[in-house]
Amino acid sequence: MPAEKDDAACLFIIFGATGDLMRRKLLPALFHLSESGRLPANFHVLGVARGAGMNDSKFREWARASLAEAGFKTTRIRHRWCSRCLHFHRLEDESSAGFRALGARIGAIERAHGLPGKRVFYLALPPQAFGPTIEAIGNAQLNRSAGWTRLVIEKPFGRDLASACALNDLVHRHFREQQVYRIDHYLGKDTVQNLLALRFGNALFESVWNREHVQSVHITVAEDIGAEKRGAYYEQTGAVRDMLQNHLAQLLTLTAMEPPAAFEADSIRFEKIKVLRAAAPLTARSVVFGQYAAGAQGRRKVPGYRQEAGVARHSTVETFVAVRLLIDNWRWQGVPFFLRTGKRLAQRATDIAINFHRTPVALFKLSGGAQPHCNTLRVSIQPDEGFALSFDVKTPGDQFALETRRMEFRYRDAFGELSSGYETLLLEIIEGDQTLFVHADESIAAWTLFGPLLAKKFKLHLYAAGTWGPAAADRLARADDSH
Amino acid sequence: MPAEKDDAACLFIIFGATGDLMRRKLLPALFHLSESGRLPANFHVLGVARGAGMNDSKFREWARASLAEAGFKTTRIRHRWCSRCLHFHRLEDESSAGFRALGARIGAIERAHGLPGKRVFYLALPPQAFGPTIEAIGNAQLNRSAGWTRLVIEKPFGRDLASACALNDLVHRHFREQQVYRIDHYLGKDTVQNLLALRFGNALFESVWNREHVQSVHITVAEDIGAEKRGAYYEQTGAVRDMLQNHLAQLLTLTAMEPPAAFEADSIRFEKIKVLRAAAPLTARSVVFGQYAAGAQGRRKVPGYRQEAGVARHSTVETFVAVRLLIDNWRWQGVPFFLRTGKRLAQRATDIAINFHRTPVALFKLSGGAQPHCNTLRVSIQPDEGFALSFDVKTPGDQFALETRRMEFRYRDAFGELSSGYETLLLEIIEGDQTLFVHADESIAAWTLFGPLLAKKFKLHLYAAGTWGPAAADRLARADDSH
Repeated sequence: MPAEKDDAACLFIIFGATGDLMRRKLLPALFHLSESGRLPANFHVLGVARGAGMNDSKFREWARASLAEAGFKTTRIRHRWCSRCLHFHRLEDESSAGFRALGARIGAIERAHGLPGKRVFYLALPPQAFGPTIEAIGNAQLNRSAGWTRLVIEKPFGRDLASACALNDLVHRHFREQQVYRIDHYLGKDTVQNLLALRFGNALFESVWNREHVQSVHITVAEDIGAEKRGAYYEQTGAVRDMLQNHLAQLLTLTAMEPPAAFEADSIRFEKIKVLRAAAPLTARSVVFGQYAAGAQGRRKVPGYRQEAGVARHSTVETFVAVRLLIDNWRWQGVPFFLRTGKRLAQRATDIAINFHRTPVALFKLSGGAQPHCNTLRVSIQPDEGFALSFDVKTPGDQFALETRRMEFRYRDAFGELSSGYETLLLEIIEGDQTLFVHADESIAAWTLFGPLLAKKFKLHLYAAGTWGPAAADRLARADDSH
Repeated sequence: MPAEKDDAACLFIIFGATGDLMRRKLLPALFHLSESGRLPANFHVLGVARGAGMNDSKFREWARASLAEAGFKTTRIRHRWCSRCLHFHRLEDESSAGFRALGARIGAIERAHGLPGKRVFYLALPPQAFGPTIEAIGNAQLNRSAGWTRLVIEKPFGRDLASACALNDLVHRHFREQQVYRIDHYLGKDTVQNLLALRFGNALFESVWNREHVQSVHITVAEDIGAEKRGAYYEQTGAVRDMLQNHLAQLLTLTAMEPPAAFEADSIRFEKIKVLRAAAPLTARSVVFGQYAAGAQGRRKVPGYRQEAGVARHSTVETFVAVRLLIDNWRWQGVPFFLRTGKRLAQRATDIAINFHRTPVALFKLSGGAQPHCNTLRVSIQPDEGFALSFDVKTPGDQFALETRRMEFRYRDAFGELSSGYETLLLEIIEGDQTLFVHADESIAAWTLFGPLLAKKFKLHLYAAGTWGPAAADRLARADDSH
């Protein structure tokens, strides 16, 4: 239900409004959207947070400073926008008194600015605050208004299957699923969305996007950073929760899904859920856990995970996980999907490699007696957004020998700098399009698939920081690509 | 039968040795091969031509000047190579006395330089001299020696089906087909050979190289030059003979052929012949003839064909031909191959465009309300050797709209400057590999297909120089790509 801009006048109530996410992502995105005329003309933000001494004017001051820090230079416009659009409300706890006062404040702002009661409740909060806040919103009946109300929840959505189910139940006591926007910020990235364009806008790729033509799929989310200052947080998290269940699951489903009946939220999300449900349960033989030991990133020596601040000396938390996944459906039967993510890997890179079958016969000599190579379509999500198709080409000269080369397309060359993705997500929330948000059933299906890994005690392979992870993971991948 | 370099000591007997082809192509290619150590150590050229006053030393002088003109700067090496390897023999006509004397000279050179009687007879002659020269070589039994003898014939191979058959009969009276190397210099080009690498070295492309996935194939050989100084020659030739029957037929067969049983001459040429034999006879409705009228190339005004020197004022010779061809086999049934060539077109460009089917459904909005676009793989033979795959990609930002972009591979970027192709062909002749040469049956099949166009009186569409040819040809192409 895309709304006209003028109909979209609304109020964003952001919980956790003085936090990191607000400062680094939400404020800059909202301001940039406003600057470029893509926000409704009548648009207000009510920041909600604990914070003794914070008030409207201090919040605006803090917001101006945050925007300056984010690189925005237009002082006067920034100043005016913050003064006109930003408001603050102190909320010390989830007491009903506190939320009644919040409700009164919301009503006051809506009346003062002629807002039609369209409200976005944005939970930019630590996960343990999700439940109580949703409950308090519901109990105070802030989710009832003359307009629509929407609930935005940042990741992580649950710590495991049981907690995700419980959180969904709670959410659904106060909001219909059509009102809920679960954020996985990967879905805001143009290159992630482009997976759909690539597949369903181009008959060539979709024609070969199946077991007849694809040998294996490798999905990698590699970070070069370590746990560093977030050691204590990471001890409670690990790679399965931090990456596999959400970002990698998203890349997996967009890569493997069937064409949707239509390009709209439920059709697309239904197909994504089907992928997760068709995935075969993971066995111990198809999982490799790893943890980084001391090593070097470039020339810089870096400590191992267990030496990071806030990390137990004998921690067994996985900073790396690789899984070999099979999807039991007609399209993908027998094609291994190799998912891999880790911290302190050789470089920061998120990509999806579709490896096509080798030629059934080798007609040509290959330089250096190499094995015939398979064509690979590599979709790069970051840092070099784009894609590349590798193929064999004749080397010049009188010998008929082949060499592997690449055809490339770089998003940046074609379109310039890309946005962070938050701008897209925020606009979709205002427009009421859920396509780029995680459905309840999707989060549950992802937990059903990956949650069991949390309960098992896998062997933990140490790997040196700055490498591509444990050798066991390479063996897991190679086994599939040599047949 | 690839020969070891040391076994390959041989003598090139080049008829027409003071002509244009020798000066511009053969000499530079031979010298460059020698310079880069790719010729047999014991290698000699006997230039044969009419030419009062020409002798060994004058021929060497002329050759040195020709090489300098071709850009070779290494004076001493050039001087030594010409003195050591080049010889000249005057031959006024095809009389048996003349050829006996030539035979004696060949024998003398072979004895003087310890050559094993391996002889290449290279006919760098005008086509009317092919027959008499071959006959005289045969009658003088120069084709019998202690080593092997090979016959190289430049295009055009015949003027029509009857003359090509007669020439083949004559050739086969004196040489077995295994000894005959019919040159189409397009086959020497790395990018033309790369068609085979692209198709049969890459499972991805070959998987979609058929009627299930391909909507149409466009093969274009566009020249920007006019008839200019060669008007009198072109009056006897026209686009069908000059381009369609040879270069375009080669590009067609390499594009459309089945995978060969092995990567060797007869297997490949057999598959190429099959394509020509499977082509449906051309009808008047599927042919457009054109002739360029006065126009402009960039800012330069250029005359029409009928205003060129040596051209009849009311000439009906075609300087442009487009055909829509169907190949009646399992792979290509119903896929139109649109072949087009002409002089004085908008630019010089030889390429092959494989247009894949459109998506069966249009899931996405297209920018500017455009029609869904088909993926095109464009193989560029000249001037920018390489290939490009066009596809639709999501434009950045919150709208899910598509734009057409290209992934590109440029041969030059990857490998630097490419050779003219003659070097490759000359080496293949020495090595006895016929893969890159036209088989007798291939030339006959191409004449069988395209020869009938010569007999028909097609409407001649005038087109302005500097355009892409007659509108009728565009209509012929468009009709197939809009369904």
